[in-house]
Amino acid sequence: MSDLERALQAADDGLDKSLERLFALLKIPSISTDPAYRHGCREAADWLKRDLASLGFEASLRETPGHPVVLAKQPKPGAPHVLFYGHYDVQPVDPLDKWETPPFEPRIGETGGKKVILGRGSSDDKGQVMTFVEACRAWKAATGSLPLGVTLMIEGEEECGSINLPAFLDEAKDELAADAALVCDTTMWGEGKPAITSALRGLIYEELTIRAANRDLHSGMYGGAARNPLHVLAQIVAGLHDETGRVTLAGFYDGVPETPEPIREQWRSLGLDAEAFLGPVGLSAPAGEADRMIIEQVQSRPTCDVNGMWGGYTGAGAKTVIPAEAHAKISFRLVGDQDPAAIRQTFRAYVREQLPVDCDVEFSGHKGSRAIQVPVDSPALAKTRAALRDEWGVEPITIGLGGSIPIVGDFKKTLGMDTLLAGFALDDDRIHSPNEKYDLESFRRGTRSWIRILAALAA
Amino acid sequence: MSDLERALQAADDGLDKSLERLFALLKIPSISTDPAYRHGCREAADWLKRDLASLGFEASLRETPGHPVVLAKQPKPGAPHVLFYGHYDVQPVDPLDKWETPPFEPRIGETGGKKVILGRGSSDDKGQVMTFVEACRAWKAATGSLPLGVTLMIEGEEECGSINLPAFLDEAKDELAADAALVCDTTMWGEGKPAITSALRGLIYEELTIRAANRDLHSGMYGGAARNPLHVLAQIVAGLHDETGRVTLAGFYDGVPETPEPIREQWRSLGLDAEAFLGPVGLSAPAGEADRMIIEQVQSRPTCDVNGMWGGYTGAGAKTVIPAEAHAKISFRLVGDQDPAAIRQTFRAYVREQLPVDCDVEFSGHKGSRAIQVPVDSPALAKTRAALRDEWGVEPITIGLGGSIPIVGDFKKTLGMDTLLAGFALDDDRIHSPNEKYDLESFRRGTRSWIRILAALAA
Repeated sequence: MSDLERALQAADDGLDKSLERLFALLKIPSISTDPAYRHGCREAADWLKRDLASLGFEASLRETPGHPVVLAKQPKPGAPHVLFYGHYDVQPVDPLDKWETPPFEPRIGETGGKKVILGRGSSDDKGQVMTFVEACRAWKAATGSLPLGVTLMIEGEEECGSINLPAFLDEAKDELAADAALVCDTTMWGEGKPAITSALRGLIYEELTIRAANRDLHSGMYGGAARNPLHVLAQIVAGLHDETGRVTLAGFYDGVPETPEPIREQWRSLGLDAEAFLGPVGLSAPAGEADRMIIEQVQSRPTCDVNGMWGGYTGAGAKTVIPAEAHAKISFRLVGDQDPAAIRQTFRAYVREQLPVDCDVEFSGHKGSRAIQVPVDSPALAKTRAALRDEWGVEPITIGLGGSIPIVGDFKKTLGMDTLLAGFALDDDRIHSPNEKYDLESFRRGTRSWIRILAALAA
Repeated sequence: MSDLERALQAADDGLDKSLERLFALLKIPSISTDPAYRHGCREAADWLKRDLASLGFEASLRETPGHPVVLAKQPKPGAPHVLFYGHYDVQPVDPLDKWETPPFEPRIGETGGKKVILGRGSSDDKGQVMTFVEACRAWKAATGSLPLGVTLMIEGEEECGSINLPAFLDEAKDELAADAALVCDTTMWGEGKPAITSALRGLIYEELTIRAANRDLHSGMYGGAARNPLHVLAQIVAGLHDETGRVTLAGFYDGVPETPEPIREQWRSLGLDAEAFLGPVGLSAPAGEADRMIIEQVQSRPTCDVNGMWGGYTGAGAKTVIPAEAHAKISFRLVGDQDPAAIRQTFRAYVREQLPVDCDVEFSGHKGSRAIQVPVDSPALAKTRAALRDEWGVEPITIGLGGSIPIVGDFKKTLGMDTLLAGFALDDDRIHSPNEKYDLESFRRGTRSWIRILAALAA
């Protein structure tokens, strides 16, 4: 038996214990965006630090103005060194009443005949992070050492914009030096179909509050004369798209590359129709730009979505109020060379332009990130591809991803390092939603995949 | 000293005790629309029953499928009999953080040098109801009896549509027989300027939920392809008005009478400009139909307002979600012969027509009410006008009111009785809003006004 085979065997033999550890981590409510869970974030970071220390890593928590970063290092003289990135924080859990079992009480369930791990973070990103940690554990158990040098950097603010991570990267630049960065926060192409992600959309997230009267008004007394900020907000939101699904902001499509026809042809051949992609979530027709294939709509085209909108009376029953304020959270996914700062400015100018007399607007925004393209011809990528092929028995697909992992741009800019994005989540994992899950098979074979990738990159 | 003078004196002498009683009632959280306050509603009803019984009324609680009605009767053989209507329920108190002191801890405060009673219900309608109760008490204290027969019917569901009251009216028709109905739930024309309300707008209140995907989605993964119900809702709301402020629903203005030019002329002469009406609430320009005077916009024209709108992530921070559902509460104020049932139907048809593929909508609505016009030439109205002139020293104004008191239509239909609407609230009382107030002078002189009106109607 080769070292690799022994490590794979160790992972399979230890699966039950691996799940126990994952469940312990999933039980910790580390919702980073909500200050009420500050303690949960630190607890998750501590848990990871202790677990990694038990594997022989020199592990510590690094303080930031927000939640701490877990940094763990285990060098291997003479061998290459990789930097693994993941996050221990999770999304909020509302609407809580839509969860079949409590979000922080993980369990094994069944979906369509498959065993799945249920709970907030099971897929995004605790489950994925633990595939890598368990791969390291298997190597240590089987051979007493890792096949190459490894640094893990597990942050706690990915779900709220990673605002403190760029500064930390800069500060810890020397400690983080490595030959390549690895990220496990992406999806496969489908069940049993591994994928390497080569493109990520960028992100701008804006929150706005529109104010009219200086207090809530009675709609019987003032209705008809008083400006209703909910009407103003609706006009603004309605005006963001035209009837063909295009975003109307001036210059929004500047820097959006046209996908070359050969690649569009390749995408067409993948046979991803709207029914296949949208059917599982109860939809049938793509809602984006009318002249684009659905794969373009979610991967290569920029978008605008309202993520939250509220104002006035939202409780049970009837209240005849004209509210003083209306609120929205609006995000944009960016591609190509779209400039987050310019688009944010255009968006804010558009909103101000739409405001009628007597209204004003207040904005708060999170850091914007550009879209990212990683090289598809590096030796490291070829090795990773081979390792995934060995594990899954099929050729991995190189895909673009609709979501955003801003840190990949910072790895390039600050550390001069390209990133390999390999993940084992599935489109139907309900990340950011109630009843988030991670296929047991994703966890088991994800771990085995990393065991192989580490061996391949060590060679 | 005449009986009337003795009664007025008794009211003035007893003001402190009157306020103590009002505060006791204001302390009871009787929010009728929220099932959590069911007990508070019953407590307020009980309090009124006990207080009225102590004045010699035969008082009881009458059960309905919702909150009970307080019924109290004190006949006076040979004299006319009046039916007084008010409500003991109050509006919800959110946003709670905008209250300077807790809504159910009433106190005397100061606003612009005037003493005011602060607390939820101080104006709408507990404060107004108690002006009438205290007027009865003053008559009893001064003369040992009321100048005429009085029935009080104080309901507990006005703020949630009075859904059970019409059936109760019908059932208790014989007990409620009287020569005229009196309502104290309206405003004065301004400080020191008494008014009799002769027209009330009708109301339709609709709640809708738009559904798209079968669960919340991640906007990175699905953004661009998945239908966002918040966008759909924004389109629907934005389309309800055209750029001149008119409601766009087909046939919406059917049955809206054109105000005769002489009356418009009279309104112009009142000098109610936008600045005067909107300035105190921080607005300057009327937002309604562009070709209408502000007094028309709030009195004689129908309106449409979104009273609440919500969906997606509304907590702190960023969540990149495409929600499965979007919600709105939308109300219409009606005038003239506008038909609530027809408009509700048109509204629902409009919403359904706007729905793109993959979306559906669920409606829930409260009972609609037609607009109401009471006769302005009755002897009772002339007597009331004289009584108000005596108290306030100026000629009372006959006005239309933007709000809705549906029961006035039922008094006519079921009991065959016209209603006299006299109230002492002011436009700036912040009813339905945080920091609701009732001027101490409204309470004191409102009580004195009823003392005089009872004497006038007895004559």
